[in-house]
Amino acid sequence: MYNRLLFLPDLRELLAADDAVGVAEFCRALHPAAIGEVLEGLAAQESWRVLGHCEPERQAEIFSYLSLPYQLELVEGVPRESFSRLIEEMASDDRVDLLERLDPEHVETLLPLVAQAERRDIQRLLSFPDDSAGSIMTTEYATLPAEATIAEAIEQLRQQAPDRETIYYVYVIDEGRRLRGFVSLRELILARPGSRVEEIMQQDVISVRVDDDQEDVVQKLSRYDFIAIPVVDAQNLLVGIVTYDDAMDVVQEEADEDAYRSGAVLPLEDSYLSTPLGILAWKRGVWLIVLLAAAVLTAMALRSYQADLEGLQWMVLFIPLVLASGGNAGSQSATLIIRALAVSHLGREQTIRILLRELILASMLGGGLALLSFLVATGFVTGNQAAVVGLTVFLVVAMGTVTGAMLPMGFQRMGLDPALMSNPLIAAFVDVVGIVVYYSVAKAIVIG
Amino acid sequence: MYNRLLFLPDLRELLAADDAVGVAEFCRALHPAAIGEVLEGLAAQESWRVLGHCEPERQAEIFSYLSLPYQLELVEGVPRESFSRLIEEMASDDRVDLLERLDPEHVETLLPLVAQAERRDIQRLLSFPDDSAGSIMTTEYATLPAEATIAEAIEQLRQQAPDRETIYYVYVIDEGRRLRGFVSLRELILARPGSRVEEIMQQDVISVRVDDDQEDVVQKLSRYDFIAIPVVDAQNLLVGIVTYDDAMDVVQEEADEDAYRSGAVLPLEDSYLSTPLGILAWKRGVWLIVLLAAAVLTAMALRSYQADLEGLQWMVLFIPLVLASGGNAGSQSATLIIRALAVSHLGREQTIRILLRELILASMLGGGLALLSFLVATGFVTGNQAAVVGLTVFLVVAMGTVTGAMLPMGFQRMGLDPALMSNPLIAAFVDVVGIVVYYSVAKAIVIG
Repeated sequence: MYNRLLFLPDLRELLAADDAVGVAEFCRALHPAAIGEVLEGLAAQESWRVLGHCEPERQAEIFSYLSLPYQLELVEGVPRESFSRLIEEMASDDRVDLLERLDPEHVETLLPLVAQAERRDIQRLLSFPDDSAGSIMTTEYATLPAEATIAEAIEQLRQQAPDRETIYYVYVIDEGRRLRGFVSLRELILARPGSRVEEIMQQDVISVRVDDDQEDVVQKLSRYDFIAIPVVDAQNLLVGIVTYDDAMDVVQEEADEDAYRSGAVLPLEDSYLSTPLGILAWKRGVWLIVLLAAAVLTAMALRSYQADLEGLQWMVLFIPLVLASGGNAGSQSATLIIRALAVSHLGREQTIRILLRELILASMLGGGLALLSFLVATGFVTGNQAAVVGLTVFLVVAMGTVTGAMLPMGFQRMGLDPALMSNPLIAAFVDVVGIVVYYSVAKAIVIG
Repeated sequence: MYNRLLFLPDLRELLAADDAVGVAEFCRALHPAAIGEVLEGLAAQESWRVLGHCEPERQAEIFSYLSLPYQLELVEGVPRESFSRLIEEMASDDRVDLLERLDPEHVETLLPLVAQAERRDIQRLLSFPDDSAGSIMTTEYATLPAEATIAEAIEQLRQQAPDRETIYYVYVIDEGRRLRGFVSLRELILARPGSRVEEIMQQDVISVRVDDDQEDVVQKLSRYDFIAIPVVDAQNLLVGIVTYDDAMDVVQEEADEDAYRSGAVLPLEDSYLSTPLGILAWKRGVWLIVLLAAAVLTAMALRSYQADLEGLQWMVLFIPLVLASGGNAGSQSATLIIRALAVSHLGREQTIRILLRELILASMLGGGLALLSFLVATGFVTGNQAAVVGLTVFLVVAMGTVTGAMLPMGFQRMGLDPALMSNPLIAAFVDVVGIVVYYSVAKAIVIG
């Protein structure tokens, strides 16, 4: 936002004065990310006027830093020929992100205008499933032959540098593109110029498979603190790399997704403010309706006890308290387990440990809350009645805790996203069962 | 986990056979992160035996990849002299993370054993507030003088490389450590060896202040896709850098914190499984008690209507439905706004736009749910009574939505964490007000 406030007025003046030299200067002066931020304050057509004055490479760089919704807006209003030039200049991973979001018909009329080599690259990258390593990797990595001397290697990197995403991590491949080793530019700089790449390269390269889930890719890259991680296919042939900056985006994206899920919103593709209201209403409404349906079950449970309700009107006072306690404990467990699962895969032994811990917590928290609820309830109702409240709170909190912990783990076992179950849905489940427990306990203690 | 399964048995055999050469070989063969993973499967004393056979530098590298709780466990059992050696070898940011968690008395007896230069560095880094740029930066950055030729610069980097966190981003400073420019190793490699650093360096360096919040640091680094971002003090003197890998950890940490907060758990310092049960019970229990207190308010609200309850027993059926609808809508809004605030700071204009959007959503979602609830309720009660349910749902959903959106934004305005208010607490607030609304509407429509 800071860049926009600072530079947008100047840029508007340059545009108003039709100062091509000034705009071209602006394109060069700031970091492309900063220019992108400024451009998003302009209407699409004005942005194109600015971009038109930048050099093609710079144009593509700036364009890549724009948000996807704004990119899409720009694409709508531009002739396909000029757009196909831009596409050729963009980094392979960025352009695939954009093309995936474009209307398929638009893509089809566009691709024939793109140079053949780039076209093939695009088509291959488009073929990888969403959220796989292949879908976030770039094909612009630097490579070296094992036999090169260090001096030759550095010379080769100098050649490759202009159109590679990074030259700090370099992969050693044979003629068949099989991944044989890895060397960093730091190691190359430190090595004797006369020695060979194969003497200093690491041979056991840590890599990911092209169909690995993007979450696993990021976990690995971040565990080893890599700048990039190589992506190989089933034959161990190098097909791309995933770089730290894209990994960082994935971490953000997955954290967003988990947050949305736990808050009972279908995950958004773009930021909150660039999502149209209709879509937002839909992504929230679906869940609200599901949860309403669950609440109707609670109403039905209550109705089934209505006949017995005579003399049990005091129970109504504590319906919200009892249900909220269970739902809250369930949300806590689900939150903790989902975060634990987001950071690492759990083995059998750890799963059992978690369940044991949650069982112990269930009785500790359930016990504590039950005691408090009992004491509070004695201020409202008789001792026996307060005992009903306390016992119910214990049972409901214990049930909520165990449910909240088991559901995410169960989903992961089945190969589903552990965050699939929202906290409100767990609460809704606890509501239905909670009513049954509440009235059953009352019948046993007060009536029975 | 994979590395542990694969290598732990071999390592145990090497230890049992007291094979020093084999263990030393093991230290060299794997990536330090992988060795760290294997070591955490051993008891602390055994891990020390392994680390004792590694070279000091390697020892520090491996140690840095261990989780903090395990590091603390190791530190307990080792003589201070050998530990002070390790401390000297560790990266400056990693060792400060560890020392911050150690018992202050332990640190005081330890520091005199550490070489003076390192000790000063430690004391300065320890003085920065938690969650500031200073607390996550490292002081091991590479620098160059502006007048150096490219050839000289690369030679100087070769000298600096062994003990710098990165040599890919290099900062140009004058004699007073004032930050004058920035140059990447890629640019150095591409430049003519005879030209000077000042000719190719970027002069407007994007940097952060040492007291900036770590979240802002990460937003900036990730917006510009930097490998590292320089940290300067109030006089624009370079004091450190924050690298991408530490930024990635911060993103994870902040996502965890937000998730915990929204799930009504006080944020954990370590992972779920390495947090002792007692602490976990405390971090959950505090919130459960607060929420229980809020539920007591709901019970009091219900009691105040008990006298009027004659003939209104049908209302009980829909108490959970009405309250859940409001709480769910509130959770959704809070989740969306908190995520939006996590990614960027919002200006005045955007704040107003968000509030407007949430008002529109409130009426859309409230209207839709109200209609559905009315229709469902007609299956249970009379038309008039169903109208009470529908109208209440509308009001409660609208109120939940607006509250859920405004609280996080209000907290940010006041300089607090927007995620401070948990979803269950918003729900609890909606519960109390919801009861009042429900009975007021009933009085107006059915009785009045």
